[in-house]
Amino acid sequence: MRAVVFDKSIEIESHLPVPPVPLSWALIRVHLAGICGTDLQLRRGYRAFRGIPGHEFVGTVAESDHFAWKGKRVVGEINVGCGTCAGCHQGLQSHCGNRKVLGISGLDGCMADYCVLPVNNLFNVPDDMSDERAVFIEPLAAALEVIAQVKLSGKERAIILGDGPLGILCAWALSMVLDRVTLVGHHPEKLKLAKWRQIRTITPDRIQDTSADLVVEATGTTTGIKHAMALCRARGTIVLKSTVEEGAHLNLSPLVVNEITVVGSRCGPFKAAMDFISANRDMPLEDLISNIYPMSDAKTAFADAANGKTLKTLISIFP
Amino acid sequence: MRAVVFDKSIEIESHLPVPPVPLSWALIRVHLAGICGTDLQLRRGYRAFRGIPGHEFVGTVAESDHFAWKGKRVVGEINVGCGTCAGCHQGLQSHCGNRKVLGISGLDGCMADYCVLPVNNLFNVPDDMSDERAVFIEPLAAALEVIAQVKLSGKERAIILGDGPLGILCAWALSMVLDRVTLVGHHPEKLKLAKWRQIRTITPDRIQDTSADLVVEATGTTTGIKHAMALCRARGTIVLKSTVEEGAHLNLSPLVVNEITVVGSRCGPFKAAMDFISANRDMPLEDLISNIYPMSDAKTAFADAANGKTLKTLISIFP
Repeated sequence: MRAVVFDKSIEIESHLPVPPVPLSWALIRVHLAGICGTDLQLRRGYRAFRGIPGHEFVGTVAESDHFAWKGKRVVGEINVGCGTCAGCHQGLQSHCGNRKVLGISGLDGCMADYCVLPVNNLFNVPDDMSDERAVFIEPLAAALEVIAQVKLSGKERAIILGDGPLGILCAWALSMVLDRVTLVGHHPEKLKLAKWRQIRTITPDRIQDTSADLVVEATGTTTGIKHAMALCRARGTIVLKSTVEEGAHLNLSPLVVNEITVVGSRCGPFKAAMDFISANRDMPLEDLISNIYPMSDAKTAFADAANGKTLKTLISIFP
Repeated sequence: MRAVVFDKSIEIESHLPVPPVPLSWALIRVHLAGICGTDLQLRRGYRAFRGIPGHEFVGTVAESDHFAWKGKRVVGEINVGCGTCAGCHQGLQSHCGNRKVLGISGLDGCMADYCVLPVNNLFNVPDDMSDERAVFIEPLAAALEVIAQVKLSGKERAIILGDGPLGILCAWALSMVLDRVTLVGHHPEKLKLAKWRQIRTITPDRIQDTSADLVVEATGTTTGIKHAMALCRARGTIVLKSTVEEGAHLNLSPLVVNEITVVGSRCGPFKAAMDFISANRDMPLEDLISNIYPMSDAKTAFADAANGKTLKTLISIFP
């Protein structure tokens, strides 16, 4: 099969073997895959990753010993727990210490003709949801995780830092439960997308309000937390969404002095994200797509995704 | 009056004016003052502090227009809010943006013959509580703040990093609500104090358990959070108690990947701390005292407090 492979560089391989399918797993023919900030981090050396990247996808089950799944169009939860530890028994497979993570750790990803996942990780995509919308279920789930983690009354003022796809999805999601949401970013053309939910937008240099109840850090930088600490009120909450492994020189004493709570936030609820997309047919997910490249142009796709001007870059694999 | 004064060095002044007493404030004759990690930070330049330090004290009200307070033995909450902002109206004067803080910001501290505080900040010390115990009400309140901030079921496993007085007080406080508490430190002679509550102790190099539900960082270092991130389980909680303004090179991605919650924690409930001391007459607070110096030896006292081997160093002002 064909696949994008990260080694020292990005390579497009043409003759890789189709992965074997374990019992209770599914072989998935990938239609469309998304490039995420984490993929760009992996590309730069995060987790010393080698192999097939990709964890945002929509595809069709080509093979499985769970026959009912065959032919179903699916998206998939990316964490695969060991299934035997205490965490897995409590339903926390996404935090299992021995977990594999699709395209991130111990399991080849979806930027290939085929990938494999346990059938328990799969979600059947409704027939009336396009591939171009379904491919956003994974990042939207990550955005909805913020609402799952932070108890909100509805009266909070929230600021989202970062006008990339994740920041915009977080802003849209929070606007469903909060009236006062502000999206902060450098790019007027990206900020425009916040308008779907009448979300206030502002460039970082113009922020004056430093009393947000909730600040979501989705800039993809190590220093976003500095900005977040400056904007968050005493006893407010900062949610960290950026997985950036490089360190930064940080003074965390404002967290202590202002008794701020910082919540690390990663993957989220797929079912809720799928339902959210079904329920909001006017949500302009397609406008988040900057470009769709064929797999043969994956190098260009990654360069495009990394240039800071684009929103979501997709790779079309089996259109 | 006499006072310890931080300028470029530590000076002992002998002829400073007694501070004026505003309406509804009290002039307090200080008996005993404690040196805290924050004082050592201020000494090193934290907040560019100049003036009289000290925020841990017990004393007697010498003067006030609220006559009932005259002659009372007191301790005092150290934050003085503006009294007019929205935060102050909500009872959050300790987080008022215009607050003064005794011996830390905008208000001379208690390492002097006299200091002043609003009568609303004062707590009458019970007659049967010695000065040597009452002077621990402020740091014990800071320790109890951990229990006030983090919702605990009683089943959590907690690790406290740092065997200084604050770490030991946090361990004692947590042991009241949790069965499984471990205190981590480098000093066997300090760790011994954890025995009052049968708290498990260990040196940092011997820790093997990396699945604590709660990690309290009380090392007074900027890098304690690195150690805390390594010991905290996925979706666990880290409480930061150290106000250290210097930055450190930190990689916070473990917070995101493991969805850890970090809670900044500062001052706590005085009344609860006073009641805690009254209720636990066998709590060996006196054993936390390494030395008591007269004010004339304040330079030695600060050197002593900073040497890493001592626990609490006190300055006796009006014995």
